[in-house]
Amino acid sequence: MLQSYRYVVLAEGHFGPQSSKTANSAIRYLPERVVAVLDRRHAGRPVQDVLGFGGAIPVLAELREALPLRPTALLVGIAPSGGRLPAEWRPVLEAAIDAGLDLVSGLHFLLADDAALAVRAAERGVALHDLRRDPGDLPVSTGRARFVEPLTVLTVGTDSNIGKMTAGLQLRAALARRGVRVGFAATGQTGILIEGWGVAVDAVKADFIGGAAERLVLQAAPGNDVVLVEGQGSLVHPGYSGVTLGLLHGSLPDAMILCHQPSRRHIYSASRAYDWVALPSLPEAIRLYESALAPLRAARVIGLSLATWDLPDAAARAALARAEDETGLPATDPVRYDAAPLTDAVLAAAERKRAQEA
Amino acid sequence: MLQSYRYVVLAEGHFGPQSSKTANSAIRYLPERVVAVLDRRHAGRPVQDVLGFGGAIPVLAELREALPLRPTALLVGIAPSGGRLPAEWRPVLEAAIDAGLDLVSGLHFLLADDAALAVRAAERGVALHDLRRDPGDLPVSTGRARFVEPLTVLTVGTDSNIGKMTAGLQLRAALARRGVRVGFAATGQTGILIEGWGVAVDAVKADFIGGAAERLVLQAAPGNDVVLVEGQGSLVHPGYSGVTLGLLHGSLPDAMILCHQPSRRHIYSASRAYDWVALPSLPEAIRLYESALAPLRAARVIGLSLATWDLPDAAARAALARAEDETGLPATDPVRYDAAPLTDAVLAAAERKRAQEA
Repeated sequence: MLQSYRYVVLAEGHFGPQSSKTANSAIRYLPERVVAVLDRRHAGRPVQDVLGFGGAIPVLAELREALPLRPTALLVGIAPSGGRLPAEWRPVLEAAIDAGLDLVSGLHFLLADDAALAVRAAERGVALHDLRRDPGDLPVSTGRARFVEPLTVLTVGTDSNIGKMTAGLQLRAALARRGVRVGFAATGQTGILIEGWGVAVDAVKADFIGGAAERLVLQAAPGNDVVLVEGQGSLVHPGYSGVTLGLLHGSLPDAMILCHQPSRRHIYSASRAYDWVALPSLPEAIRLYESALAPLRAARVIGLSLATWDLPDAAARAALARAEDETGLPATDPVRYDAAPLTDAVLAAAERKRAQEA
Repeated sequence: MLQSYRYVVLAEGHFGPQSSKTANSAIRYLPERVVAVLDRRHAGRPVQDVLGFGGAIPVLAELREALPLRPTALLVGIAPSGGRLPAEWRPVLEAAIDAGLDLVSGLHFLLADDAALAVRAAERGVALHDLRRDPGDLPVSTGRARFVEPLTVLTVGTDSNIGKMTAGLQLRAALARRGVRVGFAATGQTGILIEGWGVAVDAVKADFIGGAAERLVLQAAPGNDVVLVEGQGSLVHPGYSGVTLGLLHGSLPDAMILCHQPSRRHIYSASRAYDWVALPSLPEAIRLYESALAPLRAARVIGLSLATWDLPDAAARAALARAEDETGLPATDPVRYDAAPLTDAVLAAAERKRAQEA
């Protein structure tokens, strides 16, 4: 189902480069399956005008305008901090159900557990997919992820919503083009939407964060040369750092790729609630991740993925050069420029792992 | 209710100094409200013989033997890794319901969500208390805990089940005896059982670990000079480290007390699943906690609480002296010896905080 839906994406009041991650990722990675975006602030414009990518997909004001484009599901296109359902969206979800659309959501608020929505959906014969549902049968992690055969690479970041999933997906595509067999372990609602499987580790009972990560690595490993694990949050994020460390210790990666946005100075929040937390410098962030993992496993950051979409080309290239100077590691923006510096780093790490184990 | 129950404690097959933490803490802190323990392996012995404390409370083989002692509730006395209900305990829970006892449990498995138990309890008119239920309305933490007026002290540890709650409770009693107004923020099922309120941070959705800790600190602060926050897990525990870091970043303590067991060499598991993880040295553990907190707040470990129950007196005293030498910090076993080295350290830290803010 998830693999074949044609989506109308609800992003009312939030559609934009930094404020509608789920919508934006659907547009970037499943463009042929997004028929329209709903946000009356931008109604009438093509998605390209709002995001800088996405082509002619229309932004519309009303669900009924999207129906002639034959969507099969409505995707809730944002995942606000806390993950609750904005009250003003409920009538839109109800209208979508009434129009015969399935609903797909990555909110912490679980649509299928809402009696009114569940009854309405059952009556209309449509399905409610909650991407962030705790599978409920997770183990406590015991370190088994460190034994898998492929090279495991976790994307980590200086902040949330800074390109960890995107770096992983861009890298996967680039590695696949070079003939490498790559698995992708999706750990968040957007990754799951794109991959069709995974576990949202930020939505499981806290004792099982590591166990979820461990299981995903074990599932993604067979038959692959490389497993890319989607990172979450940041070790310095006051709200989400627990998820970040649990994922690090459950996935026990062979190597890490550090993601950062050069223009960002503080932990991001639309409400500026985290302006008191400065982002670490790149060398400091590398030290934080390597030392947090060190008691369980010696593994290194092997490359940097920078999100430079908000910088002019010259400034972006300067930021990449500066990052390489500061850290001695290869850096690129794998969306905007060539992913090769990172794919080369991953292939070299895979070669070192094979040599050590031979 | 939780504050007035008389408990029969179910610990069948697990009653012992290291394997039945919930039972043992109920016996240590609520001895007048524990009428009996169930474990047929030790039936006929007093609790004192099994634990080294607990006096004449009897260990019995069968629930029916405990009924003449007039319990009002059955307490599930263990919280195994993963928190599932051992199948062989279900008949005992059913018999307890049939005997008119309420049930109190700290398992991840929620009794009240089990249809069979819930129906049976409703029919018999008894209550099911799940200490580990996610309150469901938690915020994402934003750092508000750092502004509370009392000195906040988090107990941290080299491992799980190594004395973080016990250190906090012993310290609370010792401070109260010195006239200090002390709040205790319970973050685990056993602390909640003893305090009567709190949130089991290991059972909330992972995005809300920090938010749970933040709320608890804000609730415990008013009217107190000191707030002791019950720590969880360890930053090097492969299964639980996410809970530990989330709690650290949500509670944002002014100071920390490090808990350790000198005889322990590896992360503990009855199944030895974590023997591959060496416990950090005390100086290394101090560095780990202080540096994990540093990006959000500069705070120090101010004292050491050692669990020495498994060492002879001379070896215990030698371990304390060695710990003080290695770290330059005051150390005691606040169960076995005087808590004063830690209470002095807390009072000195409270004095420093008042001076800084004056």
